[in-house]
Amino acid sequence: MRATFMYSAGDVRVETAPDPVIQQPTDAIVRTVLTCVCGSDLHPYHSMDPGAANPMGHELIGVVEETGSAVTRIKKGDFVIAPFAFSDNTCVFCHEGFHTACVHGGWYGSPETGGLQAELARIPQADGSLVVVPGVDPATAGDSLLASLLTLSDVYLTGYHAAHMGRVEAGKTVTVIGDGAVGLSAVLAARQKGAERIILMGRHTSRTDLGRKFGATDVVAERGADGIAQVMDLTRGEGSHVVLEAVGHMPAYEQAYGIVRPGGVISRVGVPQYEDAPIGFGSLFGKNVTLTGGPAPVRAYLEDAIAQVLDGQIDPGKVFDVQLPLAETGEAYRLMDSRKALKVALHP
Amino acid sequence: MRATFMYSAGDVRVETAPDPVIQQPTDAIVRTVLTCVCGSDLHPYHSMDPGAANPMGHELIGVVEETGSAVTRIKKGDFVIAPFAFSDNTCVFCHEGFHTACVHGGWYGSPETGGLQAELARIPQADGSLVVVPGVDPATAGDSLLASLLTLSDVYLTGYHAAHMGRVEAGKTVTVIGDGAVGLSAVLAARQKGAERIILMGRHTSRTDLGRKFGATDVVAERGADGIAQVMDLTRGEGSHVVLEAVGHMPAYEQAYGIVRPGGVISRVGVPQYEDAPIGFGSLFGKNVTLTGGPAPVRAYLEDAIAQVLDGQIDPGKVFDVQLPLAETGEAYRLMDSRKALKVALHP
Repeated sequence: MRATFMYSAGDVRVETAPDPVIQQPTDAIVRTVLTCVCGSDLHPYHSMDPGAANPMGHELIGVVEETGSAVTRIKKGDFVIAPFAFSDNTCVFCHEGFHTACVHGGWYGSPETGGLQAELARIPQADGSLVVVPGVDPATAGDSLLASLLTLSDVYLTGYHAAHMGRVEAGKTVTVIGDGAVGLSAVLAARQKGAERIILMGRHTSRTDLGRKFGATDVVAERGADGIAQVMDLTRGEGSHVVLEAVGHMPAYEQAYGIVRPGGVISRVGVPQYEDAPIGFGSLFGKNVTLTGGPAPVRAYLEDAIAQVLDGQIDPGKVFDVQLPLAETGEAYRLMDSRKALKVALHP
Repeated sequence: MRATFMYSAGDVRVETAPDPVIQQPTDAIVRTVLTCVCGSDLHPYHSMDPGAANPMGHELIGVVEETGSAVTRIKKGDFVIAPFAFSDNTCVFCHEGFHTACVHGGWYGSPETGGLQAELARIPQADGSLVVVPGVDPATAGDSLLASLLTLSDVYLTGYHAAHMGRVEAGKTVTVIGDGAVGLSAVLAARQKGAERIILMGRHTSRTDLGRKFGATDVVAERGADGIAQVMDLTRGEGSHVVLEAVGHMPAYEQAYGIVRPGGVISRVGVPQYEDAPIGFGSLFGKNVTLTGGPAPVRAYLEDAIAQVLDGQIDPGKVFDVQLPLAETGEAYRLMDSRKALKVALHP
């Protein structure tokens, strides 16, 4: 099969690799219908040291080709969504809704599990991980439906997780920091949850325009102290009930605690590119601010989100602005890294 | 009147000071029935630089002596509890339940507002701040009832705030870090909220014994890595759903994120003696841990808590193990600083 590997920062190649095979009785092999590049793939694209080739990708919709002997719920021919982390969906943490902490779970993109920017993928814990899209034939489904279903593998439900953990609800003012695909997804999720006002902080007009379509009521292009002042002005000096932080860099976190209101919530889904940060009296504690978020347990939200996409309630696939064949995955990384593309879908 | 002042670290004196007077039409003057020393008073007791004398104390029950012209809800002769922060109880943040962020609120212990370890106190925003204890005459009420009512000024409701923000509920495993009066109060509040299991981390047997009376099901005396290992053993390796951190020093925070379970909550009410701390992938983010807490909006919880004390449902006054006359406030600080007293009540 053809699969994507990163050799070092900036060096992404699509190569011929052995077809994946069932290794555990709980595995399934899935043939990719659509995969894509994630904003988080750009972190190693900037910093990876040369070394062994690393398989890339963790977002996928596809058709089941083969199942292990212990797989009972998923069967050959099913059209499925694979969450970006696999999980058994039965352990104590899965039951509590935190599938990314599953005791039998894990991540794609290692030599052991392989990556999903590929023609075929091995999905561990297939019964727990994969969710069937009912009544849809990928061969005849439209591109926009497939794109929206693909976002349920990661990006939309990561934005949704931010809103869920941030306890967004009717009447709340929500500020989203970041106009990448996750930030825009967070805007859409905040609208779904009934936020009264949604302020989007971002400075790429083509992206913030999509943010407005998704439900943003205000856009703030300024950053840092100027951006904080703008949001405070927009909220009568009170600050935002909820801040959804979809960037992961320290300046975004500093903006977040600058604009959150007393008793408010900062919900992070941008993977933090820092370990230590201010949380004392002057930043979080004095204002009774709640800090939450983490890797989205996509699996927990998947059935409901599939229904919303099929009903036409949400159209998160609009975050894909470029379509490329899998052979051009390297170009997809370049376009996203240079911000010429918001998010690129890849067709095997 | 007699009032308490700190001159520098370790130097606390009870002196004659001018009686407080109404300064604003929203003020009231209250004659103290009972006041006390707070664990947080020990921070300046350790570190205060010599300088102007600072009035001390922020916990009080008393009888209203006089009210300003704009005070309508509170009247002379009322037996009241004064929360440790004053607030108007009408602003947007008070309505949202975060009275410690009141736009007209503030703290005691400055030269402007004075301290509450005194015979008389000026209470700003009296209508918003003070809550009447219905049907109780302090002259005939028993010592244990008065002690429990005094804890509603700060210590019990600070422990309650930890449990409230930590979303303690039936079926949860809760670990309380710290066996001071706030930690023990957090144990009692967690029991009130129906926690299934309450692990108390503390090493002073007389205190953890009271913790068991308040509802602790397990006591862990070890600290650091050993303490973390013990709690993980007690929770089948899963960790605690909720951690109530009632210390405020970095090792307590490190213990907290070491024992919290994926998707769990760390709720802090110990005033952090640090600003920066780990919150990245390796500490909070990777496990989807929620960090919450801050200065308790005691006023928000006061009516319900008064009813629980009067009904005999809770007896938080047991945290007072020493009673002294106000003249001996200096000795009260010494006893608490040397851990010979858990918490000292002061009688004018």
